[in-house]
Amino acid sequence: MTKPRVVIVGAGFGGLQCAHRLARRRIDVVLIDRHNYHLFTPLLYQVASSLLNPSEVAIPVRSIFRGSTRVRFRVATVTGIDLDARRLRMEDGAEIPYDTVVVAAGSRTNFFGLQALERSALGVKDLSDALGLRNHVLGCFEQALREEDPALRLRRMTFVIVGGGPTGVEYAGALSELFRLVLVSDFPDLEVEQARVVLLEARDRLLSEFPAELGDYARKRLESLGVDVYLNTAVAGYDGEAVTLAGGEKIGAASMIWAAGVRPAGLAGRLDVPRGRSGRIEVDEFLRVRGRETAFAIGDIAAVPGPDGDLLPMMAPPAMQAGRHAADNILRAARGRPLRPFRYRDKGIMATIGRNVGVARIGGVNLKGFIGWAAWLLVHLYFLIGFRNRLVVLIQWAWNYFRYDRPIRIISRPRRPGEEE
Amino acid sequence: MTKPRVVIVGAGFGGLQCAHRLARRRIDVVLIDRHNYHLFTPLLYQVASSLLNPSEVAIPVRSIFRGSTRVRFRVATVTGIDLDARRLRMEDGAEIPYDTVVVAAGSRTNFFGLQALERSALGVKDLSDALGLRNHVLGCFEQALREEDPALRLRRMTFVIVGGGPTGVEYAGALSELFRLVLVSDFPDLEVEQARVVLLEARDRLLSEFPAELGDYARKRLESLGVDVYLNTAVAGYDGEAVTLAGGEKIGAASMIWAAGVRPAGLAGRLDVPRGRSGRIEVDEFLRVRGRETAFAIGDIAAVPGPDGDLLPMMAPPAMQAGRHAADNILRAARGRPLRPFRYRDKGIMATIGRNVGVARIGGVNLKGFIGWAAWLLVHLYFLIGFRNRLVVLIQWAWNYFRYDRPIRIISRPRRPGEEE
Repeated sequence: MTKPRVVIVGAGFGGLQCAHRLARRRIDVVLIDRHNYHLFTPLLYQVASSLLNPSEVAIPVRSIFRGSTRVRFRVATVTGIDLDARRLRMEDGAEIPYDTVVVAAGSRTNFFGLQALERSALGVKDLSDALGLRNHVLGCFEQALREEDPALRLRRMTFVIVGGGPTGVEYAGALSELFRLVLVSDFPDLEVEQARVVLLEARDRLLSEFPAELGDYARKRLESLGVDVYLNTAVAGYDGEAVTLAGGEKIGAASMIWAAGVRPAGLAGRLDVPRGRSGRIEVDEFLRVRGRETAFAIGDIAAVPGPDGDLLPMMAPPAMQAGRHAADNILRAARGRPLRPFRYRDKGIMATIGRNVGVARIGGVNLKGFIGWAAWLLVHLYFLIGFRNRLVVLIQWAWNYFRYDRPIRIISRPRRPGEEE
Repeated sequence: MTKPRVVIVGAGFGGLQCAHRLARRRIDVVLIDRHNYHLFTPLLYQVASSLLNPSEVAIPVRSIFRGSTRVRFRVATVTGIDLDARRLRMEDGAEIPYDTVVVAAGSRTNFFGLQALERSALGVKDLSDALGLRNHVLGCFEQALREEDPALRLRRMTFVIVGGGPTGVEYAGALSELFRLVLVSDFPDLEVEQARVVLLEARDRLLSEFPAELGDYARKRLESLGVDVYLNTAVAGYDGEAVTLAGGEKIGAASMIWAAGVRPAGLAGRLDVPRGRSGRIEVDEFLRVRGRETAFAIGDIAAVPGPDGDLLPMMAPPAMQAGRHAADNILRAARGRPLRPFRYRDKGIMATIGRNVGVARIGGVNLKGFIGWAAWLLVHLYFLIGFRNRLVVLIQWAWNYFRYDRPIRIISRPRRPGEEE
């Protein structure tokens, strides 16, 4: 009997957990991702704010499955899946047959169809975004130094972040600290105190997934860090020089960072599957793509109802739990046993705001301030895969904490053959 | 009396030493570089071979001069210098007046006018090169995995390095170890043992700056690491698929890495100054640009005769010594004292070949094997600026040494606004 082949599309939190679980059994696993690394997205904003190296949040998938003979990894872009013939199609034309597929292709930045924004705003969703953002932010200060017109100089030093969810809040706090604790010493000839971080949120509070008390606390703490928080404020447009708000007001800014939401990866739209209003793939209670017995969908790309009827949030914990659950159901099906329905266990949510300040909701308890920050630190350190990364990240964090320094603030990008500088 | 202004063009080894020395005195120093970091070039090949992070060899210039009120740093590209009017011209049209200028703009890859090579070969000279090379090498193995034709697969896994100086030797050894110690476990489905590293040298031995005994030792050790060393072999052409040797022979290779030499930075050719055959700026015995009293030239861009009559090599130690000497002469001139002629003190040269294997020539003694490697390690660690970098680099090296792992092997590049992946 040949071993059944499970192909997992995406090496994010969901795909990785699924592969790990299957690798322990007699299952032939093929794991596919566009990149050769797993990205620890919750710490991406620290790469974008010059605190961590890319390699500290991006772990090579091959190093994770080193020594495993059951998981084969491929760097490729899946362009389509024939769910009847059970074949995946790759960008280069190659096809891969499967017995069961797990669609875990994740999400991408949601610009809500605003193409002008998409052209000039900076994302903070993947590693290329974070590196581009780091280069851009540091470059803005170098340009400001050369700028003789005070109004244009201020524009170079104004950073508008759109979206008051965890990413927006964490990046706003990190940028503000970068400016006030580090760049102020780096640029003695520049009035870095004038640099502005503006956080725009369309709803009436920050961190809408958290209890109102914590969202309100986050706003106050960000404001005490010097961040200008605008609530009930939607963005109408951006031309690279000024952000136009829905009310008509303009904020001069050479940078707009878009953290206002994500949408399912493009693959979801190229499959012949039922999709919900958000574009996420509909699944049954066993996490199978609705109407399919040999296709599962998990993580950001899947529309999984939570205990309150809403879809589960597009975050790491639901993806990880669903990845393990899908693996278990694949193993049950292989043994002819009945599948089990997926039940999400909410272990809490947390966000860091700045030095010694965080918020967390764990087990029905609200934590804030130092204890919220300490909880955030421990949990994130624990989940960073691999001892070495944990150690190096801890050193970086400790260095930053005690020295008010950020060691990574270099502007760099790789060259391609024949490319001029 | 206003303080005299010294403008230093280039924050490499020479420019940095010069700025450090001047910063201690009542001199107004402006330091200019195209990048916002100082690059520790001797370890660049380790970035290109997935061992070190960019931030471990690139130190932000602003962090080096943090707290100094005497050194002002500017990120800019100097396009010309009016040596009579004493003004620098920048790419953006701005001009900077000076009392004394120190030209320390360094060097760039020398393709010897072979434009076809320049288009398709990969350099290993600056940080963009090293990151591009890392992405490329890792990408070649991912591509090889998808390649069904054995000949094409082998071509993807063949890496031709041109130039048997320290850079070529060190990179050949590092690549071979990356393949044989690390990637062989990463790619169980690929016959990584077939991967070839070919080192081409036009002269009759490697490391021609070293005693013949050490060059011969380096060749034997590289060969025992599996590197194919071709001596007396010049390159005639490269089309991205095969390297054509001067004798007509072809080596199929999807990668050619050019480490065959450097030439002075483009700025040298845009100045109205006497230049030697190599294009380097001629200087008098005091390191002043020949015929000029207020312009100095140091490092790779300057033609400084050594004790044996040959020009000093384009390496860090002569640049560092000249940087300090130029600073001292500028200070002497400011006080109306006579300048002193520059005498280079050769403290030795060294190169690492692989795990536990290095060569060094120090104080007239040849060191090789483990002791040569240990000497290399200590000296390079010592010269890496800043305690933190030393500590992190030591951890990375120790990890690699004991675990046969390379933690940085991710393929990444920054995104620009509006750019699709």
